[in-house]
Amino acid sequence: MAVYTEVSDEEVSEFVSAYDIGGVLACKGIAEGVENSNYMLTTESGAFILTLYEKRVDSADLPFFLGLMEHLAAKGIPCPTPVKARDGVALREVCGRLAAIVTFLPGLWPKRISTDHCRDLGEVLARMHKAGADFDIQRTNSLSINDWRPLLEASGRNDTELVKPGLYDALTQELDYLEADWPENLPLGTIHADLFPDNVFFRDGHLSGIIDFYFACTDAMVYDLGICLNAWCFEPDGSFNITKARRMLATYRIERGLSAAELDALPLLARGAAIRFLLTRLYDWINTPANALVVRKDPMEYLDKLRFHQGVKSVADYGLE
Amino acid sequence: MAVYTEVSDEEVSEFVSAYDIGGVLACKGIAEGVENSNYMLTTESGAFILTLYEKRVDSADLPFFLGLMEHLAAKGIPCPTPVKARDGVALREVCGRLAAIVTFLPGLWPKRISTDHCRDLGEVLARMHKAGADFDIQRTNSLSINDWRPLLEASGRNDTELVKPGLYDALTQELDYLEADWPENLPLGTIHADLFPDNVFFRDGHLSGIIDFYFACTDAMVYDLGICLNAWCFEPDGSFNITKARRMLATYRIERGLSAAELDALPLLARGAAIRFLLTRLYDWINTPANALVVRKDPMEYLDKLRFHQGVKSVADYGLE
Repeated sequence: MAVYTEVSDEEVSEFVSAYDIGGVLACKGIAEGVENSNYMLTTESGAFILTLYEKRVDSADLPFFLGLMEHLAAKGIPCPTPVKARDGVALREVCGRLAAIVTFLPGLWPKRISTDHCRDLGEVLARMHKAGADFDIQRTNSLSINDWRPLLEASGRNDTELVKPGLYDALTQELDYLEADWPENLPLGTIHADLFPDNVFFRDGHLSGIIDFYFACTDAMVYDLGICLNAWCFEPDGSFNITKARRMLATYRIERGLSAAELDALPLLARGAAIRFLLTRLYDWINTPANALVVRKDPMEYLDKLRFHQGVKSVADYGLE
Repeated sequence: MAVYTEVSDEEVSEFVSAYDIGGVLACKGIAEGVENSNYMLTTESGAFILTLYEKRVDSADLPFFLGLMEHLAAKGIPCPTPVKARDGVALREVCGRLAAIVTFLPGLWPKRISTDHCRDLGEVLARMHKAGADFDIQRTNSLSINDWRPLLEASGRNDTELVKPGLYDALTQELDYLEADWPENLPLGTIHADLFPDNVFFRDGHLSGIIDFYFACTDAMVYDLGICLNAWCFEPDGSFNITKARRMLATYRIERGLSAAELDALPLLARGAAIRFLLTRLYDWINTPANALVVRKDPMEYLDKLRFHQGVKSVADYGLE
């Protein structure tokens, strides 16, 4: 739940008056998202999302994020489109925060994942990767292989051991392994890098929207699949659902294709994706004040997923022949 | 900020299918309100608010609250109208909670109160009292004179003294005074009882909506004015703005009229309203866990307001001749 910056009636009305979207009918803080303040903005011309960028977002990255959404939306990817004010500028300021209005996407994110969800996800992810191939701004992934050991060290041996005895050494060994073998020559593209179910909307059984591009970056496209294997293909009881993985990977491959190198690298990238979310959750778990207005996510869910991928021998274990 | 019960995509779609309001386009938790879970619900036929009633609301009171909104809306008061499902029933259940869909009201609540806001408020409050006069369900005010001493005792002398030394005895003396003189024969009606600025929407400079009827009850109508004096007529620096009070009371009186007994009682009722909000805030301050997803409100703001009303000799001090 997150509304860090409260925008008053006068501030939102003045802010919106710079746009050609009519007067403000309502503006309600949304209890979703943990990085920024999000408002559902209703004006005389329709529904929008107003986002105020909070301190965890680097303002230098905002032209990349907004530019990417505009680029993808123009190519038919169902993602929010930044709305420009009358002066042609989408990135603006309100209440001392950089802010933008984007179009509102209909749909609901799925709580219980089906194989059909995974099928749609694989297809749209591949289309998104193809659409992003000629996006001309680059952004380094700030949460990739070289950032994980500093995250573990910032979490600290003592606090990490309090979460689970033996965890610090287990993660150190995993990082040793990943750092030694992390592939460098995979096809790069613009990836979403945070494609969890709460960032994907469905309507009438079909994928209707992808949101929250604030971790998007330039990285190996197949790494996005590693993230999605973790985020979409495990059951609530922790078991891996190979049918979902197969559907997701198969539809992706029909749309974009995967090289032998990408297929070979996938198990390692899935391990990397697991430890990436494990480490940010671990850090947040240790460093989030108990009275924060944010629900902390359990890092241990990702230790179990990491263990699964450690046992994977090839993409056959993900259902691909 | 409050979404206590998370409604999944499947649950909301099934819930809404009982209504004639089209399919669900979106359903986003709203970071407003502290008692219930509120969602902004967008369907093919428009915007609504979906409320799930949480444990602090007595389910036996819900027919009163929903019936009152329907009654007032039918008489032209700008308040949410409960939407009935195809079976004619508005009060339903989802996720194990009683729940209702009400119409969405456009408008923004004012952060900085103007005398014009107070003028509109006085007028609409009087119209609401007249419209509610023939509402045929009664509900006892569960936070009135007889409930305050138990609230103070539940807060406890020790914890209360930690908030401010001397506070427990000062409040005890005030309760002695109020209990001895609390008026019994004022004109009764259906009052809102929680008419703070965040429950009143304005659009294009005029009052466009009154929401949150979940403290409404049968009580002296002039007590609502006592609450509004506290909630609308003090400046951020704590000073009383007699111009705002005069505008609010004067427009109210034009619309409904106030008897001599009501005018005489107003200073005492305003003291009562101040201690009512002081005590609930004090209790919440002491009893809200530090890690709760709710921002606690400072009870001491209302001690200053109480002190002001203690010095009031007659309604002349509120600007009425």
